[in-house]
Amino acid sequence: MSDTGGFEKRREQFYDWMAREGISLVMFEDAEGKRDPALRWFSGQPMDALLFLSVDRRSLLIPWDINLAHCYAQVDILIPYGEFDRQAGTALRGAVAALNTPLGSKIEIPASTPYPVFLRHVGDMTDFDIICRDRGAGAAVEKMRALKDDEELAVLRTAAAITNDLIDLLEKKVRAGHIKTETAAALLIETEARNRGCEGTGFETLAAGPGRSFGIHAFPAYTGAAFGGPGLSILDFGVKYRGYTTDVTLTFVREPGRAQERMLALTEKAYALALSLVKPGVPARAIAAAVDTFFAKSKKVMPHGLGHGIGLEAHEAPAIRSREDNRWVLSPGMVFTLEPGLYDPVHGGCRLENDILVTPEGAEVLTKGRIIWL
Amino acid sequence: MSDTGGFEKRREQFYDWMAREGISLVMFEDAEGKRDPALRWFSGQPMDALLFLSVDRRSLLIPWDINLAHCYAQVDILIPYGEFDRQAGTALRGAVAALNTPLGSKIEIPASTPYPVFLRHVGDMTDFDIICRDRGAGAAVEKMRALKDDEELAVLRTAAAITNDLIDLLEKKVRAGHIKTETAAALLIETEARNRGCEGTGFETLAAGPGRSFGIHAFPAYTGAAFGGPGLSILDFGVKYRGYTTDVTLTFVREPGRAQERMLALTEKAYALALSLVKPGVPARAIAAAVDTFFAKSKKVMPHGLGHGIGLEAHEAPAIRSREDNRWVLSPGMVFTLEPGLYDPVHGGCRLENDILVTPEGAEVLTKGRIIWL
Repeated sequence: MSDTGGFEKRREQFYDWMAREGISLVMFEDAEGKRDPALRWFSGQPMDALLFLSVDRRSLLIPWDINLAHCYAQVDILIPYGEFDRQAGTALRGAVAALNTPLGSKIEIPASTPYPVFLRHVGDMTDFDIICRDRGAGAAVEKMRALKDDEELAVLRTAAAITNDLIDLLEKKVRAGHIKTETAAALLIETEARNRGCEGTGFETLAAGPGRSFGIHAFPAYTGAAFGGPGLSILDFGVKYRGYTTDVTLTFVREPGRAQERMLALTEKAYALALSLVKPGVPARAIAAAVDTFFAKSKKVMPHGLGHGIGLEAHEAPAIRSREDNRWVLSPGMVFTLEPGLYDPVHGGCRLENDILVTPEGAEVLTKGRIIWL
Repeated sequence: MSDTGGFEKRREQFYDWMAREGISLVMFEDAEGKRDPALRWFSGQPMDALLFLSVDRRSLLIPWDINLAHCYAQVDILIPYGEFDRQAGTALRGAVAALNTPLGSKIEIPASTPYPVFLRHVGDMTDFDIICRDRGAGAAVEKMRALKDDEELAVLRTAAAITNDLIDLLEKKVRAGHIKTETAAALLIETEARNRGCEGTGFETLAAGPGRSFGIHAFPAYTGAAFGGPGLSILDFGVKYRGYTTDVTLTFVREPGRAQERMLALTEKAYALALSLVKPGVPARAIAAAVDTFFAKSKKVMPHGLGHGIGLEAHEAPAIRSREDNRWVLSPGMVFTLEPGLYDPVHGGCRLENDILVTPEGAEVLTKGRIIWL
């Protein structure tokens, strides 16, 4: 991806947005505790930097580790963070100087900027109009990132192929009795993902054997507990390839009781129902609401959303949930999970999750997550 | 820890602070992308919840997963987040109702609250005085958490003992040639930490063989690359036990050149110098400044801080760095890393890191991180 000018193309799209909005400079920040994949999306820099985009179509990256930036970043100007004492406020003033941002013009800082920090920036930069808003630059980038371009889709397809390899391997190893604990399942993924060229897993693998699968997000994420024995075992994972993550969930079933069989059947039906509704123009909320209604008819409740976008983040736009404020409408190029699940303190939990690409015609299922009967 | 009333003791300390500050209600939030260990510290709830502390000495937890809360949380009142549509604003109004917070009184929300969210809360809660400040409740908790109590020290000592076990095991396996790649080193830690009852690693293990050790934070964190061969290999890891993480760095050395031997000797001397300065009453900044000066005499620069507090977070108070705004002064009960290191694009990097407890007399080194000559 970094070889093809894709970053510059994405920045061009954003410069146009800035011009329409009348904004001279936009600041993005990625740091521990406040990750922002916009940096990697616009510049290739994987982490720990400030990125400034100027409406006169220049990009400035201020990285914490200049060596890392030399390996990954494609920007017009590069200045080490150390030159600004590693303080965001100092770097902001430095960026304005380096880019000759006109006095009095609008500078947008991240919507995540804490209120006290916002006050400091405003106090430090009285010669500029500092803005910070929910539906501003961050939301615009989120919307752009929700539609994957061809380079991103190529990366995601490779990530999906690796994921599918791992699913087959996991099924084989659990069936053969080579994987008997949550840790064994999780670490096989960790090892094999890296052996196949991934940067790692996309998020901490959740492996929950029959004794713990009732939790939506098992805590701890995996332990030495038994996995794949009688009952329901859940394995929720993704691989991260060139920054992009997949996200699938397998449920392993052994000697299920009637209640468990019913949960599994309902989950599979809910999944098929959701998938049948995916096509351009459909509100994401309508799909999630249909699944909620389906479960409600069987007096079941799914205690989480139906799905979420994936890409540089494990959870990004579009949201696939039934909350009223969900306004996302499906478009070709969106990639998201569908992951219906049911959980019971006695019988355990089951979930079926795959990654779906919206195509002009409908849906393409990129991954092969499934319920595996042992 | 959850058996001994430690949570209530910590809350009592905080209620006193609230009374002094004239604040009726304080809100804490832990969610994806905005973790706040104050929740676990005050209540035992490991993640994904809102916590409200009321000056009339009552605690209310609003967890995302009620099953998890039943297992871990020790609070006065528990209400599932679902009852508030999983919206922080709705939950805040619900908390005020549940706790009968007096109209017109002060409610403090997290200092990390984004500016646009702050505006919404203020607009929603015009009957109250909503405050959000850098040196408010969050900073007070940070300061309290910087002094570990006896229960925390007991947990950290266990975590350190497990870490030391792993260090010995890693040395043995690298010497025996059983670990030859970064992935093998990192996954041994991942497996063995969990086998010893840990929740996992405290942060993503950094394993960088001779070809990548020049990076302060190698990216990706570990790969299939060779580890422990000729040159300098860095292994930076911590284990997370009952929420508390250690943080150590080993450097493995094989067939070093003169430049590498000099880097190692300087790093070890810097470490010894730093350790010799640790005792109650010493400004943390002075220790870091002494190390900066020591390296400068040899025309070397350490491109990161000297250390940082550890506990429920891998990076917490006190900061051990030479920046002017660092006002921390060492006190008994503080636990932090000392981690001098030098990095060179040609010769690679080395770092030596251990976890230090400040005692009434001086320092106790909890971990056995070291430079290992192969």
